[in-house]
Amino acid sequence: MPDVASSAVTPIPTRWVGPIRVSGDAVAGEHEVPLATYETPLWPSVGRGARVSRAVEGGIRVTVVDERMTRSVLLVAPDAAAAVSAARAVQGRLAELQALVASQSRFAWLLEIRDEVIGNLLYLRLAFTTGDASGHNMVTQAADLVLQDVLRAEPRLEYGSVSGNLCADKKVSAVNGLLGRGKNVVAELLVPGAVVERELRTSVRRLVDLNTRKNLVGGIAAGSLRTANAHYANVLLALYLATGQDAANIVEGSQGITWAEERGDDLYFSCTLPNLVVGTVGNGKNLPGVELALERLGCREDRAVGANARRLAALTAAAVLCGELSLLAAQTNPGELMAAHVRLERRAEVRA
Amino acid sequence: MPDVASSAVTPIPTRWVGPIRVSGDAVAGEHEVPLATYETPLWPSVGRGARVSRAVEGGIRVTVVDERMTRSVLLVAPDAAAAVSAARAVQGRLAELQALVASQSRFAWLLEIRDEVIGNLLYLRLAFTTGDASGHNMVTQAADLVLQDVLRAEPRLEYGSVSGNLCADKKVSAVNGLLGRGKNVVAELLVPGAVVERELRTSVRRLVDLNTRKNLVGGIAAGSLRTANAHYANVLLALYLATGQDAANIVEGSQGITWAEERGDDLYFSCTLPNLVVGTVGNGKNLPGVELALERLGCREDRAVGANARRLAALTAAAVLCGELSLLAAQTNPGELMAAHVRLERRAEVRA
Amino acid sequence: MPDVASSAVTPIPTRWVGPIRVSGDAVAGEHEVPLATYETPLWPSVGRGARVSRAVEGGIRVTVVDERMTRSVLLVAPDAAAAVSAARAVQGRLAELQALVASQSRFAWLLEIRDEVIGNLLYLRLAFTTGDASGHNMVTQAADLVLQDVLRAEPRLEYGSVSGNLCADKKVSAVNGLLGRGKNVVAELLVPGAVVERELRTSVRRLVDLNTRKNLVGGIAAGSLRTANAHYANVLLALYLATGQDAANIVEGSQGITWAEERGDDLYFSCTLPNLVVGTVGNGKNLPGVELALERLGCREDRAVGANARRLAALTAAAVLCGELSLLAAQTNPGELMAAHVRLERRAEVRA
Amino acid sequence: MPDVASSAVTPIPTRWVGPIRVSGDAVAGEHEVPLATYETPLWPSVGRGARVSRAVEGGIRVTVVDERMTRSVLLVAPDAAAAVSAARAVQGRLAELQALVASQSRFAWLLEIRDEVIGNLLYLRLAFTTGDASGHNMVTQAADLVLQDVLRAEPRLEYGSVSGNLCADKKVSAVNGLLGRGKNVVAELLVPGAVVERELRTSVRRLVDLNTRKNLVGGIAAGSLRTANAHYANVLLALYLATGQDAANIVEGSQGITWAEERGDDLYFSCTLPNLVVGTVGNGKNLPGVELALERLGCREDRAVGANARRLAALTAAAVLCGELSLLAAQTNPGELMAAHVRLERRAEVRA
Repeated sequence: MPDVASSAVTPIPTRWVGPIRVSGDAVAGEHEVPLATYETPLWPSVGRGARVSRAVEGGIRVTVVDERMTRSVLLVAPDAAAAVSAARAVQGRLAELQALVASQSRFAWLLEIRDEVIGNLLYLRLAFTTGDASGHNMVTQAADLVLQDVLRAEPRLEYGSVSGNLCADKKVSAVNGLLGRGKNVVAELLVPGAVVERELRTSVRRLVDLNTRKNLVGGIAAGSLRTANAHYANVLLALYLATGQDAANIVEGSQGITWAEERGDDLYFSCTLPNLVVGTVGNGKNLPGVELALERLGCREDRAVGANARRLAALTAAAVLCGELSLLAAQTNPGELMAAHVRLERRAEVRA
Repeated sequence: MPDVASSAVTPIPTRWVGPIRVSGDAVAGEHEVPLATYETPLWPSVGRGARVSRAVEGGIRVTVVDERMTRSVLLVAPDAAAAVSAARAVQGRLAELQALVASQSRFAWLLEIRDEVIGNLLYLRLAFTTGDASGHNMVTQAADLVLQDVLRAEPRLEYGSVSGNLCADKKVSAVNGLLGRGKNVVAELLVPGAVVERELRTSVRRLVDLNTRKNLVGGIAAGSLRTANAHYANVLLALYLATGQDAANIVEGSQGITWAEERGDDLYFSCTLPNLVVGTVGNGKNLPGVELALERLGCREDRAVGANARRLAALTAAAVLCGELSLLAAQTNPGELMAAHVRLERRAEVRA
Repeated sequence: MPDVASSAVTPIPTRWVGPIRVSGDAVAGEHEVPLATYETPLWPSVGRGARVSRAVEGGIRVTVVDERMTRSVLLVAPDAAAAVSAARAVQGRLAELQALVASQSRFAWLLEIRDEVIGNLLYLRLAFTTGDASGHNMVTQAADLVLQDVLRAEPRLEYGSVSGNLCADKKVSAVNGLLGRGKNVVAELLVPGAVVERELRTSVRRLVDLNTRKNLVGGIAAGSLRTANAHYANVLLALYLATGQDAANIVEGSQGITWAEERGDDLYFSCTLPNLVVGTVGNGKNLPGVELALERLGCREDRAVGANARRLAALTAAAVLCGELSLLAAQTNPGELMAAHVRLERRAEVRA
Repeated sequence: MPDVASSAVTPIPTRWVGPIRVSGDAVAGEHEVPLATYETPLWPSVGRGARVSRAVEGGIRVTVVDERMTRSVLLVAPDAAAAVSAARAVQGRLAELQALVASQSRFAWLLEIRDEVIGNLLYLRLAFTTGDASGHNMVTQAADLVLQDVLRAEPRLEYGSVSGNLCADKKVSAVNGLLGRGKNVVAELLVPGAVVERELRTSVRRLVDLNTRKNLVGGIAAGSLRTANAHYANVLLALYLATGQDAANIVEGSQGITWAEERGDDLYFSCTLPNLVVGTVGNGKNLPGVELALERLGCREDRAVGANARRLAALTAAAVLCGELSLLAAQTNPGELMAAHVRLERRAEVRA
């Protein structure tokens, strides 16, 4: 009797929203983005942000700060001294291990190894570049290689786990933000006060105050961890699903910071997303709908290795900013959020 | 020119996995669960855990500990004394506010109000039961009502936001785990050592050691927050998508704890999921595929209010346990995880 | 051979600083505070803040929001259902347990019990008022009583620990801020812009910007937990030592939030300290120097039960605000902090 | 009228406890340690742990894994691109900045710079070795230098703060544990089961179970952050005060992990303390009592630069282990903790 049966698909309502105006090294111009979601009010919300982006010269500036994918292996030593000595030996053989990884993979390149010793337990957090792939499997395979090599070289160590949770994949942590995992991307927009009032029906001051009181102070009060935003997870989920990503990575993706301030009459508004785990090739990317979406986003072009994935990360961050700006604006006005939800969900249900 | 266009769907590969054997107040018997995911190795992984559940009398015992949905409103007072005085007045009018909420909604019932004062800022975290709905919109609507009422009753307060991030929706926090949001569910399984060896190709001791070293210690080392598990987010995402949930709630859903110990020759294995935000009615639940899935899960029966949603939460927790047990077992064996991924993804691609 | 020998004292340099002008229910007037510290630049730093407080009518307003002391016991159940059933039974017997606690202690009153179930583990977090004592031992004794009673009433439970770390004493956590431990106190000051410029050599705008960028955003970036301040721990340590407190409680005491905003030309500046664990009677309070210090603070008067401890908490929060305001002001000016340290430590060394 | 007056000292009861048997690169042999504390039951508690250490060959093995002191400066850029470009330029000039720091300080050596960009804000976290000093002032001075240099080299940046809270000094964070601050030290002890039973009146299994359920799971449930221990803060405070340390650093010092497991009939017990901020020279170390204490600890000998401080860190970690082991053992037995407190405080009061 089969345990796994009854193949089918779950269709997620999807729309292309925008275009969003963006600039920066990773992507420029005006681009629509696909949002696959049951929460259909997300479409006009991101759409409103996109309209604001088009009212600003250069639109949303996106900066890709870093990119890497990680896997942490766990080794068990007899004691801390043995763990530390093994860690130092591994660090001393970094070039060797880089060559080893490179010999087995065209795209995985071992950037660095961070070691952490807890009692007799040794965690090695391996960071790689992975080309245009998000790299989950690539780094597991590479970590397996490194792990076997370390076990051979350090006979006092025993296998603990190919994943020691210091990676950390699809889990809440501080390590990903502080040491990096996925693309680290900043999206920014300088919105003239008049545009804020016309398109967002609020004021610069009220938006800045709301961000500070809700996202910063409210987040701190809630016991958040490296998280200060209204709803990054909503936009990330929708874009990840539409582009074939491993969408459980919205867990760490949601850990980002919205930072806004008044600049004269203008609003400076930014979203910092240190953990965007996205790719344009690899698992899930060959499904027909996904491929079409990636092509329409211009993320399947013939570019330098990694450039398609950075483009996707940049568009994702820009879409997150659109959704964030729009929702915050709505929340500055009593009753607006609920009224919009009621109106839009009714409309969406008719259309869907 | 429309900002939102090109309606379509994104099809997510979906299979029914199991059946999982479960017992408890919320659900009992053997039930398959639908998993919508691009990460197709999840199917056999959960399937293996399901097989283990069927090897145990009573299978996975599921306990629903609590259920509530929250929204926090933000009010701005002139100073802390005014904020505290308003908070006390609000607490004193709890019965009145409960009646107010009940007068506008058949299903929303205001359970409690928690207040938090930061300087002159007053955050009121409202907790409700919401029947069989996950309740996002229901509690926003109710919070709007309460907010207006409080603003009328406390003229020194000003509107801050209908959401002050102490809710906290789709964001990493400690508040949800400690004060509750969604269903709080524990799934447990007592597996005989022989079943561990036969079905999971490992031993009780190795599984317990791995959980302690990886999920507990490794999680702590990673700077996790109320999180000690291997991959709850994967299973939650797949089940949420297949059943029409607002899947961005996997962010807080992922914050759960796997706890295992040796009991004689047996393995005690448990997954505690304090923040399952699921519903069987409401937004997204009327799409044809979703409705069918909920029906097949027995979650659209004529039951007491809330019982269908609790049943869904219980099945979700059971599926999470299946996936967790299976992945941890694989990680006790060097190389097994990667070999399985390679084998299964290849097979899945052929089938999909 | 004795393990514990060579009795002596360690003398900590101590000065009375201020007076600080304060108002509020717990304390009013102008009061000096004693600071015992090796970090002698703290004295003029708090002193400068005190000067600012005296330039403002009413000075620092202090609001005591809540007070309680906690201890969490750990019980081991056979499974989650048994744990939940026991927890419900315990909640149902709250009045009985309150009477039990009251029968053994004049000052301990059981306010509430929070229960948390993780797998088969049951954590009961007991909250008490403890009169003028900080209450460490009082609540341990009361928790012992409750624990024995629960073990008698629930034969399926086993003793786990008299402390299950959900208390949480002298450890970093989110639970203390969210559920309360110690006095929850807010100190606020509205400083005219001219005073900011004259006494603090900076501007309202620069102070607010610094607090937002450093304490809020910088803290979030650092992976802080319910922490947004510059150096609460310094002032807390000095006051705790000088008044005979269990100063290791600065760990949770340090988890507080500085919140500032521009109000017209004025600076609104506040320190929220949710976890001040202080007492005016009990262990350590009978040492001669400590007694004198408490008397001079007016914290050994014949007042309503708890009022002396609230007074001490209020003065502590006011002193924290003085130190916080002064340090932040210094950090708005490049080079000022270091220059002050060099100058003051040299001076202090001469004097000490 | 003076703001700072009435010089005096606060005498903290102090005893030398032990001797503790230790081994490792930083310290070996049997050594007493001074504990300055109002919580006098701490003395026999650490003393009992010391007795256990002397029952084991080699005693407590201490491994110093890393040492560094940090300060983070905050710079304000016009936008993220400018911030990133400045960060890269700074990284490219690391050797130059190292030389600059070395030119102004005999002991400060700039190890590395970590940069973090949040919107337009640039945080540079500077890590230094600081010889035998804890280094608070040394790194502030060095950071001032680097900051001025960066402001000269990067004219688009403005001064934000000499401390941007990513340091993070005396505050709860994840950054210190993950990137290092202070000495990172592991103390370990392998205790024969018979010694556990005789000296600690408990069993190996019960101790391991308690550590797992209370420190690991209980800590996770409490929303702890990189914290899993019973009371590191108590021992740290007492040792820091007795040796002239800036004792507010117990805040980050408290964030450590107790890890225990059964090894055959023996108990493997370890305390990992990643953030011990201690020094043997510098501010506070020249007070007469402090100097004597440091001399008696052998921490004022003529050793290689840094060796005295590492010795002190190692002795501190060993003392923490003694206190941790003893308290956990007591908590395995119902009622023991409270009985000991009552008995010891009564006795201590008589003696003090």
